Amino acid sequence: MSRETLPFPTSSIPPLEPYLPPPSSIPATNPSQNPSPKIHLTLTYATSLDASLSLSPGTRTMLSGPHSKAMTHYLRTRHDAILVGCTTAIVDNPALNSRLETISSLDQQPRPVILDPKGRWDFDEDSQVIRLAAEWKGKGPWVVVGRGLEGEENLKERGELLERVGGRSVMVEGGGEVINSLLAEPENRWVDSVIVTVAPTWLGKGGVVVSPPRREGQQPQLRLRDVSWQPHGEDVVLCGRILRD
Amino acid sequence: MSRETLPFPTSSIPPLEPYLPPPSSIPATNPSQNPSPKIHLTLTYATSLDASLSLSPGTRTMLSGPHSKAMTHYLRTRHDAILVGCTTAIVDNPALNSRLETISSLDQQPRPVILDPKGRWDFDEDSQVIRLAAEWKGKGPWVVVGRGLEGEENLKERGELLERVGGRSVMVEGGGEVINSLLAEPENRWVDSVIVTVAPTWLGKGGVVVSPPRREGQQPQLRLRDVSWQPHGEDVVLCGRILRD
Ligand SMILES: NC(=O)c1ccc[n+]([C@@H]2O[C@H](COP(=O)([O-])OP(=O)(O)OC[C@H]3O[C@@H](n4cnc5c(N)ncnc54)[C@H](OP(=O)(O)O)[C@@H]3O)[C@@H](O)[C@H]2O)c1
Ligand SMILES: NC(=O)c1ccc[n+]([C@@H]2O[C@H](COP(=O)([O-])OP(=O)(O)OC[C@H]3O[C@@H](n4cnc5c(N)ncnc54)[C@H](OP(=O)(O)O)[C@@H]3O)[C@@H](O)[C@H]2O)c1
Repeated sequence: MSRETLPFPTSSIPPLEPYLPPPSSIPATNPSQNPSPKIHLTLTYATSLDASLSLSPGTRTMLSGPHSKAMTHYLRTRHDAILVGCTTAIVDNPALNSRLETISSLDQQPRPVILDPKGRWDFDEDSQVIRLAAEWKGKGPWVVVGRGLEGEENLKERGELLERVGGRSVMVEGGGEVINSLLAEPENRWVDSVIVTVAPTWLGKGGVVVSPPRREGQQPQLRLRDVSWQPHGEDVVLCGRILRD
Repeated sequence: MSRETLPFPTSSIPPLEPYLPPPSSIPATNPSQNPSPKIHLTLTYATSLDASLSLSPGTRTMLSGPHSKAMTHYLRTRHDAILVGCTTAIVDNPALNSRLETISSLDQQPRPVILDPKGRWDFDEDSQVIRLAAEWKGKGPWVVVGRGLEGEENLKERGELLERVGGRSVMVEGGGEVINSLLAEPENRWVDSVIVTVAPTWLGKGGVVVSPPRREGQQPQLRLRDVSWQPHGEDVVLCGRILRD
């Protein structure tokens, strides 16, 4: 994988801004609304036209183009933590840092958080997140054991977890199982915004598909509001917030 | 269903033009390239973010907004025939005509073609296509019995079919089985352009999914070239041509 820094034009930032957490200096606690700190959760992924994230759970698949990649690296600088499931950590061996050319200090890097209930991620010095932390190019990862994103009662725990990480915002990057669990009920109420990159390709049947479980009855699971579509090279970037009914 | 005519702004036409067949007055035969008449096949559908056309094969699901609907009615005026599978004909009872406000004569209407190998579509005067033909608001439908869109040897037959219909262009509108069979190999070589409307919604697991069969080996099934993304209200319209490798 290339290790160069990535340029991201500043003109691409304003359309994303409404969907991002406030810059981390602004206190995000709003005691009148919620006694626990307000955490901004951004759900992001890159998908094919047939809703696949990759050709199979064991494959890393390049879906989006260079502009979308630079955007991901910009988004990473705007969140305190970046969260993936352990299968993604194992299969992709992701760097989970930002290589944006404007990065000048470790403070601007997000904390990698890996959901790994059963301790399946067998990391060592060849793991990119570990190597980059050793080189001061990324923060050391946090591994979350035990289920972390399901059920009402976990909301408080998640808040505490992020507070310990020192953060108020988390960007969830995948993979399929983590994203589907966050689009389900009642978990989707934790999602503040969604940023999806769609590539003009069909991966074909058998991929890792994003499609949440259906709600009771014959009705669409979820719709976005405050929708914006921004073409970026061959891809399109969709931003929105979940419509509550 | 509303029977009013639909307005479609002329400013929306130029971005679609490169993906449409030439106006029907221009002879489309090109004997040097192909001894059979050149037929333009446009594949169109409206999809959710999780690649579903509808909640189930037995349900009609409104996915796209009013602008996308008007676009479909414009596209119908630009094709000689409009083709759907028999399940769509049975479940949706579609009109398959154009209610664009600029339509002034039956000549501008496409010929409805229904793929119905086993004669499952049990039409009568309550079927919209039949009623509209009786009212001179649409052409009478053609029902194609026997398999029609599979295998190399059918290419010539399809050409002859369309010639008999009096047409050089066909717009395929669904449903899932018909679209998946046209995105498969070798059928996708008949596809000249693809126009997909994506709505910012997830229908959830269990819908009618567009995802073609995978090619040999671990590689993406299909990619588009000459890609254009046009936001239309809350939806985006993707136009492209299939990339041949
Ligand atoms: N296109 C993209 O944007 C993108 C982004 C990231 C990854 N990917 C691809 O996605 C694929 C991997 O996706 P995947 O669905 O197989 O796996 P995944 O979501 O990365 O990880 C799944 C694992 O994470 C744990 N987990 C999931 N949900 C959890 C929850 N709610 N709470 C606690 N732990 C939870 C479970 O571990 P246990 O089973 O041990 O309990 C589960 O098996 C790879 O091919 C990767 O390349 C694509
Ligand atoms: N969102 C959209 O844009 C859109 C558009 C249209 C329809 N839809 C939805 O799609 C759903 C129906 O889709 P579907 O996949 O169940 O059915 P479908 O594609 O409409 O029709 C399938 C039937 O057509 C015949 N057929 C299919 N491929 C053929 C081929 N290559 N050659 C000859 N005949 C062929 C077969 O008939 P036999 O089984 O009798 O052999 C097959 O069962 C409905 O819910 C409808 O509302 C959505």
